[in-house]
Amino acid sequence: MGATETTTSASLDASFASDNVAGVSPEILEALQRANSGAALPYGGDRESAHLREWAKAEFGEQAEILPVFNGTGANVVSLQALLPRWGAAICTEEAHVNNDEGAAPERLGAIKLLPLASQDGRLTPEDVQAATARRGDVHAAQALAVTLTQSTELGTLYTPEQIAALTETAHSAGLGVHMDGARISNAASALGTSLAALTTDVGVDVLSLGGTKNGALAAEAVVVINPERVPGVEYIHKYSMQLASKQRFVAAQLLELFGTDLWRTNAAHANAQARVLAEGLASLEGVTLARPTAVNAAFPEMPVEMAARIQSRYLAHTWETAPSGLPVLRIMCSFATTDAQISELLQVARGA
Amino acid sequence: MGATETTTSASLDASFASDNVAGVSPEILEALQRANSGAALPYGGDRESAHLREWAKAEFGEQAEILPVFNGTGANVVSLQALLPRWGAAICTEEAHVNNDEGAAPERLGAIKLLPLASQDGRLTPEDVQAATARRGDVHAAQALAVTLTQSTELGTLYTPEQIAALTETAHSAGLGVHMDGARISNAASALGTSLAALTTDVGVDVLSLGGTKNGALAAEAVVVINPERVPGVEYIHKYSMQLASKQRFVAAQLLELFGTDLWRTNAAHANAQARVLAEGLASLEGVTLARPTAVNAAFPEMPVEMAARIQSRYLAHTWETAPSGLPVLRIMCSFATTDAQISELLQVARGA
Amino acid sequence: MGATETTTSASLDASFASDNVAGVSPEILEALQRANSGAALPYGGDRESAHLREWAKAEFGEQAEILPVFNGTGANVVSLQALLPRWGAAICTEEAHVNNDEGAAPERLGAIKLLPLASQDGRLTPEDVQAATARRGDVHAAQALAVTLTQSTELGTLYTPEQIAALTETAHSAGLGVHMDGARISNAASALGTSLAALTTDVGVDVLSLGGTKNGALAAEAVVVINPERVPGVEYIHKYSMQLASKQRFVAAQLLELFGTDLWRTNAAHANAQARVLAEGLASLEGVTLARPTAVNAAFPEMPVEMAARIQSRYLAHTWETAPSGLPVLRIMCSFATTDAQISELLQVARGA
Amino acid sequence: MGATETTTSASLDASFASDNVAGVSPEILEALQRANSGAALPYGGDRESAHLREWAKAEFGEQAEILPVFNGTGANVVSLQALLPRWGAAICTEEAHVNNDEGAAPERLGAIKLLPLASQDGRLTPEDVQAATARRGDVHAAQALAVTLTQSTELGTLYTPEQIAALTETAHSAGLGVHMDGARISNAASALGTSLAALTTDVGVDVLSLGGTKNGALAAEAVVVINPERVPGVEYIHKYSMQLASKQRFVAAQLLELFGTDLWRTNAAHANAQARVLAEGLASLEGVTLARPTAVNAAFPEMPVEMAARIQSRYLAHTWETAPSGLPVLRIMCSFATTDAQISELLQVARGA
Repeated sequence: MGATETTTSASLDASFASDNVAGVSPEILEALQRANSGAALPYGGDRESAHLREWAKAEFGEQAEILPVFNGTGANVVSLQALLPRWGAAICTEEAHVNNDEGAAPERLGAIKLLPLASQDGRLTPEDVQAATARRGDVHAAQALAVTLTQSTELGTLYTPEQIAALTETAHSAGLGVHMDGARISNAASALGTSLAALTTDVGVDVLSLGGTKNGALAAEAVVVINPERVPGVEYIHKYSMQLASKQRFVAAQLLELFGTDLWRTNAAHANAQARVLAEGLASLEGVTLARPTAVNAAFPEMPVEMAARIQSRYLAHTWETAPSGLPVLRIMCSFATTDAQISELLQVARGA
Repeated sequence: MGATETTTSASLDASFASDNVAGVSPEILEALQRANSGAALPYGGDRESAHLREWAKAEFGEQAEILPVFNGTGANVVSLQALLPRWGAAICTEEAHVNNDEGAAPERLGAIKLLPLASQDGRLTPEDVQAATARRGDVHAAQALAVTLTQSTELGTLYTPEQIAALTETAHSAGLGVHMDGARISNAASALGTSLAALTTDVGVDVLSLGGTKNGALAAEAVVVINPERVPGVEYIHKYSMQLASKQRFVAAQLLELFGTDLWRTNAAHANAQARVLAEGLASLEGVTLARPTAVNAAFPEMPVEMAARIQSRYLAHTWETAPSGLPVLRIMCSFATTDAQISELLQVARGA
Repeated sequence: MGATETTTSASLDASFASDNVAGVSPEILEALQRANSGAALPYGGDRESAHLREWAKAEFGEQAEILPVFNGTGANVVSLQALLPRWGAAICTEEAHVNNDEGAAPERLGAIKLLPLASQDGRLTPEDVQAATARRGDVHAAQALAVTLTQSTELGTLYTPEQIAALTETAHSAGLGVHMDGARISNAASALGTSLAALTTDVGVDVLSLGGTKNGALAAEAVVVINPERVPGVEYIHKYSMQLASKQRFVAAQLLELFGTDLWRTNAAHANAQARVLAEGLASLEGVTLARPTAVNAAFPEMPVEMAARIQSRYLAHTWETAPSGLPVLRIMCSFATTDAQISELLQVARGA
Repeated sequence: MGATETTTSASLDASFASDNVAGVSPEILEALQRANSGAALPYGGDRESAHLREWAKAEFGEQAEILPVFNGTGANVVSLQALLPRWGAAICTEEAHVNNDEGAAPERLGAIKLLPLASQDGRLTPEDVQAATARRGDVHAAQALAVTLTQSTELGTLYTPEQIAALTETAHSAGLGVHMDGARISNAASALGTSLAALTTDVGVDVLSLGGTKNGALAAEAVVVINPERVPGVEYIHKYSMQLASKQRFVAAQLLELFGTDLWRTNAAHANAQARVLAEGLASLEGVTLARPTAVNAAFPEMPVEMAARIQSRYLAHTWETAPSGLPVLRIMCSFATTDAQISELLQVARGA
């Protein structure tokens, strides 16, 4: 059943393996309790879903719509289907989650061709978009009609609002719609000190996968429609893509608690800060350098083989790559739940104390 | 956004509209609290998922596997994809949820042809299965290689274990796999006084959509693999069908609380009993008869036009059909949460008191 | 390899089994010879394709486009994909070729839900279209956004131009596009004494599967776009649906010879006339009646069991149905190639002479 | 309608643009004439199809099956669907026709993920196959379960039989099936002096797209099943993929004439030889070198800008790439129909005479 890896590593501490190892913010569990009162219309006819729609309009603009979904793949695949006609393709980076880690859901469920491009640190550029349209009108070629970017990226980097604006302007000029995979948009907005709209509505993003789960929700993400004209039929696609909860009030309540308050920013800021502390702590150790900047909530320390071995004998921590030096680079992630004590402990293990 | 209907009916009492209008069993919210402790491996590498797998083996047999999913459409579409090769089709009733109420998800996401058959009270027969294989081997015809039955059915009826056994025997002899849509299997098992296995493993069902949400969960269903040989690759299909939760412990915890205790039976028995009380109460009123038996948790009273109007001006209640008499038949559903007071009140409204 | 049936019946005379048992009109083989001169641009950049496009505009209107395809299923599946967004469904009759005899190609390749309706003699009515829109806007239901009708129908009946006009008017008013499966439109136009446009452009059909193969071509059909606004992206769909011939001049040449001259009408008129002669000949025999009218090129004689046995021991002839009388009804088809001698012979066999 | 490019270049001589600009071998048109005799069972129940099946068994082994299709994309997409379960992916080169030039048909019609790899001159290696299985069993990753190689390749290179054997051995050991896109397998076998089986059956290929059209047929390719166990259900896939001709005798007759005689080898040898003559003629000119070897029927001359301009003002000839020198490299293709006079003329144009 494909669970081999997880079984063998069951004795390791998973706390730094990813930000999805964390549990749920207590505030969100309380919101679920509050939502559990009496009967409510299913499929979004409930009070929490109504309030969530109001929040989305307040945050992303009057034209915005929000469709709660169960997970990030769901958000991405609904968004891309809505953005693309049957003959459209989407450009993405080679590292994109949608390209590597969703079991080929876009191809299998949406019959969508992805056009993966080599990237600079996980980011697409206006030139990439330009180049992808070289065969526009050629029926033999998949027609690039959308671009999907990830904020923050799979490599832990960030797009500035200006970079996003440049990308969306080129995309729109060339006839492409723009999707943002915002599984970690909260971390990005926190790091950049912006609102969510500043990274989306204000810079031309058409549809957003709004991530909640990695930032403290139980299982809650959303498709945020920023430009409705670009995503006709999205409500039908949402349903047939198996992302419409019957008791939607409980998905909406999670999102409402997270985004209708400051919780999203508090949680993300905490995760980012802890990653920075951890990165600096590691970098102060003999033989350790940071292979990549700690822009959000992941640290990428390059370290001696023995130190990596010590850490990995205690923690589940991916060897992300081998540095040009030949030394291993680990990816160590923090979450809203990472405590100071956990960081001290990991640093102690690293030091071999 | 397709929410017109729900908006206009927002002022009606939804308590009897369906069993998905109810909230969550308090025990299940407590189970979520308990599961929220520390870091846990994602995607099923957690303790709750492990326990759920043990439960599934104990209930459905050592060979059984269980894959938690988010909703019933997810369970059905994963199951049917796994049961069918690219060239397979599934027979179902014309009334089947999978045929009418899932936005064509099987066709759209699984490229599956459904072969809907007229049914007797929502049930398929061995003869139906037999007939569906008339064009076996004819490349011009969709090849019926699976049958999907619903227990309890969309028309509120039940298959006896013997009826299921007869169906699966014919299906297997004819080379078809058998899927059961068990969105309300708890209500069925309660009504029939059987275990879940008695309706599935013991009578030849290959794969089950195990329903939790309508019976008190927040959002938790599962694909239960009873005959692994019939559903190769189901774990990949589960993933790419966007039904694998990253924080799966919280979906597993719901199912574990529901099915690992007596909660599933208590909740279902309550819903069934309340529907019976309600049905009898209505049937005792002047001019009311029961158009269909109250086998599980739905009552189908045929009533004078004015009584229907009174009920529908207060409650959200579907007019299910028009009886041969010309009178309306309503569908009124009870759930684990239906109180005696609610029933009294509805009967009072019916009486025009 | 699924060829069992054809193998066992290899010794029977296939001449009356269908209209696709015939070979190719000599004029069409000559046209292939003529087209075989020098180099030509592939994929429609050739002279014959250009002339075909001119013919299509002359016949179906200035706005019309024509995309040659290889077979009828190809034409239907390209048309329906172009007519429907991802969330659309198409209504058809239960007897429709697209529903029964294309191996579920619409569902498998286009992820299209078909909504088959019981029909009167193979024809849809405006009321059918009306009823199919009952759940418009309900995200749980497949959205009927196209109607596909067959002219002449699978049951050998015809739509009058007025019937088509009524259907398309209702369809358009209700927001549905209209596709005609014209695998035998030539037979229909001949029987009705109309032009092709009189059955399509003039009565509101949006896209036509124009049949050539059954009427004397080798392998040539076309998607005729009559209303380009209804079928965006059809040229991309044509390509990815594997229907774009590299040496398209040879497909275009067949269509041009058939439709650019009177050949289509001559061939179809011959097939229809021979079927009528055969039907009348059979009806004059003791115990034979015509179970269905001979509107085009198929006869449906109801006959004594022994006569059917005599015919079927010599000819491949489908038992179409059992009449209310209990007697078998055969389907006997004529083609452009059916000779007087063949008809005499079949009548002799029927008589038992 | 996407025909812009071809329209504007209509005045250029297309003779050297590709091998699909040629017409049809006269022998093949004669074979069509011969096949046009009397009635024949449709869908492969005819004499020519039976003979073709015999030929396939004689050439590729007793277990082999052959399914005629209309074009190369059809052959590839049928093959890959049959080779892959719903959760499978296929590795290919970045240059692969199936990846770039089929309008994303594998993704759109087969829901297949392609995993394009950087290649050495268009060829995959056993190491590529090995590397592609790194995430075997990981449900988040598309599962590489097939490899598709092109012989001769899109870059005009060849796999030796030994190279194919090494690739298939690694593939089979790693659980992948092997498909060969043999759109130009005749050119390859001619250049290598081997039989077709020597490049397929004898070296472990499981399923072959056998190309006929580029080598003199009108529109005829085939899926050759060499290892039936690897491609279950291929006959159903063939049908629903719209590749089963009703009058299949005329597709089979083309293939039979081409491959049942020496015509395939004669035609391919001619095309290859003419390309060599042309390449040598160009290479003898001042300033011209061959950027790539002329392994089959394409020449890749690197030449002065003015010479390229002279050629392209008269002929349709793709600028294939820019050489490191900065000079343009053209792709000039020969076919079975290329005459000595045409070559002389092109050389004269190149010389500026």
